[in-house]
Amino acid sequence: MKIAAIGGGVIGGGWIARFVLSGHDVTVFDPHPEAERIVGEVLANATRAWQGLFQAPLPRSGRVVWASSIAEAVADADYIQESVPERLDLKHRIIAEIEAAAPASAIIGSSTSGFKPSELREAARHPDRIVVAHPFNPVYLLPVVEVVGGGAAAQRASEVLTSVGMKPVRIAREIDAHIGDRLLEAIWREALWLVNDGIATTEEIDDIIRFGFGLRWAQMGLFETYRIAGGEAGMRHFLGQFGPALKWPWTKLMDVPDLDDALIDRIAGQSDAQSGAHSIRELERIRDDNLVGIFQALKANDWGVGQTVRAQEDAFYAREVAAPSGYPLELHQTRVAGGWVDYNGHMTEFRYLQVMGDATDAFLIHIGLDAAYRAQGRSAYTVETHIRHLAEVKAGERLTVRTRLLGHDQKRFRLHHAILRDDGTEAATGEHMLLHVDTDAGRAVPMPSLLLAALDRIAAQDSTPHPEHAGQGVRAIRQSEAIA
Amino acid sequence: MKIAAIGGGVIGGGWIARFVLSGHDVTVFDPHPEAERIVGEVLANATRAWQGLFQAPLPRSGRVVWASSIAEAVADADYIQESVPERLDLKHRIIAEIEAAAPASAIIGSSTSGFKPSELREAARHPDRIVVAHPFNPVYLLPVVEVVGGGAAAQRASEVLTSVGMKPVRIAREIDAHIGDRLLEAIWREALWLVNDGIATTEEIDDIIRFGFGLRWAQMGLFETYRIAGGEAGMRHFLGQFGPALKWPWTKLMDVPDLDDALIDRIAGQSDAQSGAHSIRELERIRDDNLVGIFQALKANDWGVGQTVRAQEDAFYAREVAAPSGYPLELHQTRVAGGWVDYNGHMTEFRYLQVMGDATDAFLIHIGLDAAYRAQGRSAYTVETHIRHLAEVKAGERLTVRTRLLGHDQKRFRLHHAILRDDGTEAATGEHMLLHVDTDAGRAVPMPSLLLAALDRIAAQDSTPHPEHAGQGVRAIRQSEAIA
Repeated sequence: MKIAAIGGGVIGGGWIARFVLSGHDVTVFDPHPEAERIVGEVLANATRAWQGLFQAPLPRSGRVVWASSIAEAVADADYIQESVPERLDLKHRIIAEIEAAAPASAIIGSSTSGFKPSELREAARHPDRIVVAHPFNPVYLLPVVEVVGGGAAAQRASEVLTSVGMKPVRIAREIDAHIGDRLLEAIWREALWLVNDGIATTEEIDDIIRFGFGLRWAQMGLFETYRIAGGEAGMRHFLGQFGPALKWPWTKLMDVPDLDDALIDRIAGQSDAQSGAHSIRELERIRDDNLVGIFQALKANDWGVGQTVRAQEDAFYAREVAAPSGYPLELHQTRVAGGWVDYNGHMTEFRYLQVMGDATDAFLIHIGLDAAYRAQGRSAYTVETHIRHLAEVKAGERLTVRTRLLGHDQKRFRLHHAILRDDGTEAATGEHMLLHVDTDAGRAVPMPSLLLAALDRIAAQDSTPHPEHAGQGVRAIRQSEAIA
Repeated sequence: MKIAAIGGGVIGGGWIARFVLSGHDVTVFDPHPEAERIVGEVLANATRAWQGLFQAPLPRSGRVVWASSIAEAVADADYIQESVPERLDLKHRIIAEIEAAAPASAIIGSSTSGFKPSELREAARHPDRIVVAHPFNPVYLLPVVEVVGGGAAAQRASEVLTSVGMKPVRIAREIDAHIGDRLLEAIWREALWLVNDGIATTEEIDDIIRFGFGLRWAQMGLFETYRIAGGEAGMRHFLGQFGPALKWPWTKLMDVPDLDDALIDRIAGQSDAQSGAHSIRELERIRDDNLVGIFQALKANDWGVGQTVRAQEDAFYAREVAAPSGYPLELHQTRVAGGWVDYNGHMTEFRYLQVMGDATDAFLIHIGLDAAYRAQGRSAYTVETHIRHLAEVKAGERLTVRTRLLGHDQKRFRLHHAILRDDGTEAATGEHMLLHVDTDAGRAVPMPSLLLAALDRIAAQDSTPHPEHAGQGVRAIRQSEAIA
C-alpha cells in the first residue's frame, strides 16, 4: 500500500509517523522550510513511544520520501492524507492538484477539524473519493479518527486506518466540526469564562479534570459513566435526575468571552506558572510516557484503548515471519520505559523478568506455539527461573535479548536468555524451565512432532558449551566468606 | 480523628469507604431502609480496589458505626460529611440538626454539587464552619474534591481530606455548581444535542472520548494539553489560532433539547445496546480495575494522580510500626489484579517476581532500610533470584508472602519468600540474594550496626532447616529423564 501525505506539521507528522512505523513508505509534500525538521521530531517521539508501547517486535519501518510537488507525491498513491491549514480555498486548491495527478482509485482523507465533506467536495472531479479523516493529537498514539462522508471511500478509508492501529468512528450525518471538537469547544468556552471571571486558574481547572472526570473518560465515556451513576435503575433513572438541572441558568455557554489582550495575558501567565517548568519537548515526552502507561494498563485489563493496542500487537506478531538469522536467537528487543524504573533510579527487578517473559513468548511463537496453537488447549508454563542481575539499566535504554535452547525433551524445554545493552554487555541472564501442558487437564503432555522438530532444529545450532552459571542456584552465605 | 457521615448513598458510601479504609471509625446516619446494604456494597468495591491499588500494607480498617439519629452520629465528631439529596430546604434542616448536637469545633463538609456555601450557611448558627466539599464518583478512588468557602474551616477541611488521599482544589469565589459540574454540563448539553439530532449514538460519542481526548485528560488537563498543541510558540500562539473558531456558530449549547419521552427512549435504548452486556455491578468493577491500572501506570511515571497514590502509600508505610508477630515474617499481602493475568488465564510470571519484590521492600523497611536510609546513599540491590512456580493463581485471589532470612553477612543477605494462597498452599517460592551497596560508588559496602542487629535478631528466629530446594538451580534436561 502506497501512502502520500500532503502537509507535514504536527498533525501531518503524526500521520506520517503512524504509517511509517506500521511499515508503509510515505511520500510527503510540504513546502514549509522547516517541514523536514518538524516531521523528523514527531517521528522521533513516535518511535520512542511505540518502542515503549508494544511488547511485540515492531514491523520494519517504512521510509519517508520527500516529494517536490503534490503531483510527484501522489502519483501512485493508494491513500492520500491531506493536513494543510484550515482554509477552505486552500483545501480546494490542494484537492484539485491531488486529483490531477493521483490514480483514479486513490482515496483522499482530509484532517480538517471544521469542514464538512460536502464543502471539501464542492469543486472536485471525483467527489465520492473524498472523506474527512479527522484525528486527535498525538496522532501516532491516540487511536480515534472521525470518518465522515459515506460510501465505499469511507469504508475503504476505515479499513486502511484500522490497519495502522486506529479506531475509526464513522459519522453518518455530516455536521460542522464533527463530534469531538464540538464537545471540546463546549468545555473550552466554559473554561474560558471561569478564568475570565476569576473563579479558577488554568491549573485548578486542569487539576479538576485530571484528578477527576478525566480519569473516568480514559476508559469509559460520558454515557457509560452516567449509566453507572444511575445505579441499578440505569440510564433512564439518571436522565430523570439530571434532567431538571439542565434548566438551571448556570452557564454563559453561548456567550464567548472576549479574547482580548487582558484575557490572553491572564491565560498565558497562568499557563506559564502551571507548566513553565517543563519545555514543550519535555511535556510531549511526559504526555507520551503517560499515554503508553495508560494504554498498557488497559491492555492488561482487555478494555478500551488496550484492545486496540492488543489487536495491533497481534498483527505485528503475525507478520513477523522472517526467520531470524544467526544463533543465539535474537527474537525480542525493547526500550526501558520511564515507569519501569524504581526508587534506585534503574529498572526494577520484576521488569527484568518481564523482558525475559516477552522473549520467551517470542520464542514460543517462533517454534509455532502461538495463539492459534493455544486455542487447541495446549500451552507452555514456566515452572522454574534463575535470574542473575549483572548491571544497572536506566530508563530509555534499548535492550536486546539473546536466547539459547539449553535442552529439551518431549514435555520440557530449558531456555537461557541474556539481556544485552547496546554496548554489548550483559545486564542480566535468565534460565527458565518450561513445561508443555494440557491447559484443561492442568498437566504436562508430550509436544506434537511439529514443535519437537522446531526444537530439534534449534538445538542442533546450540554447539557451544553451556554458560558456567547454568544449573546453579543461589549459594549459601557463611559468615566467614569474604566478598569483594 | 472522629468522622461522621450524614447520608449513605453512592456518594455517602464512597466517603465512608475512603475514611474507613484510611483507618478512621465513621458514625453514619441514614434513615433509608437499604442504607446498610448500599454502604456495604460500596465498601466492598472500595476494599477490593484499594487492595489492588496499593503495594504498601493497608492501614487497619476503621469501623462503620450506625447511629439512630443525627445527634448521636455527630455527638463527638471532628469532621462531618453531609451527603443528603440535593434540596436546599433539606440541607438547611440537616445542618440545623448537626449544629444542635456537634462539638463547636467540628467542621461540616457538604457534598452538594449545586449549592454555594452562602446558601448552605443561610440559617446556620456557626456559618463559618460550613464548607462545600464536593467529590466525584467513585469517591473512594477519584482524588479530586472541590472545597468552596474560605477561612479556617476550608483550610482544616483540606487537611483532613488530603490525609485520606484526596486532592482538594480550593475555589476562591463561589459559583453555582462549582467548576467540575459546569464543565460536565457544557459537554453533556452538546452530547444530548448530538444524540437528539441523530448525528451520533451514545456509543460513538463515548468512543470519541475514550479513544481520544479522555486519554489526554487522565494525565493533563485542557490547558496543559493545548499548551503542547501550541508547540514551541506556546499558549499565546494556541489562543491566537483557536480564538476565531469560538465565533463560529457551531453549537446549540444554551438551548437544551427537550428531554421528552422520545429522547429518553433513544438514549436509554442506545445505552442498553452499548453497555447492556454488563450489569451495573460488573461495570463498576471494570471501571475500578481500569482506574487502578491507570493510577499505577501514572505512579510509575511519578505524575498526576500517581503522585497522590504514592504520597498515600508513603504514609501507609510510615504508620506501619507494629512489629509483626511470629516467624516466618508476614510483611506483605496483595490481591491479584485483573491486569496481572495472562493469556493462559492466570497470573503472568513476572507478576510473581513483583509480589516477591514488594515483600522484599517490606522486609527492607522492617529492618530499617527505608526511604530515609536510602536518602543517605545506601540501598540494597537484588543480584540473584531463583523462582519455583508451583500453582496457578487467578485474578482476585489474595496472596500472603511468608518471608525467611536464610543467611547474612556484613554486606549480603539471602531471603526466602513463599507466596501463599488463602488455602495455605504455596503458589511459588523465591530465593533472593541482596547486596548492601553504596549507590554513588556502585559497590557493596558493609551494613551499619543498626541493620546488622536487626538481621541478627531475625536470624535468631530462623531455627528450622532450610527448604530442600534452597540453593538449587534449574537442572539440566536429559532425554532419558522421565517426568510425570
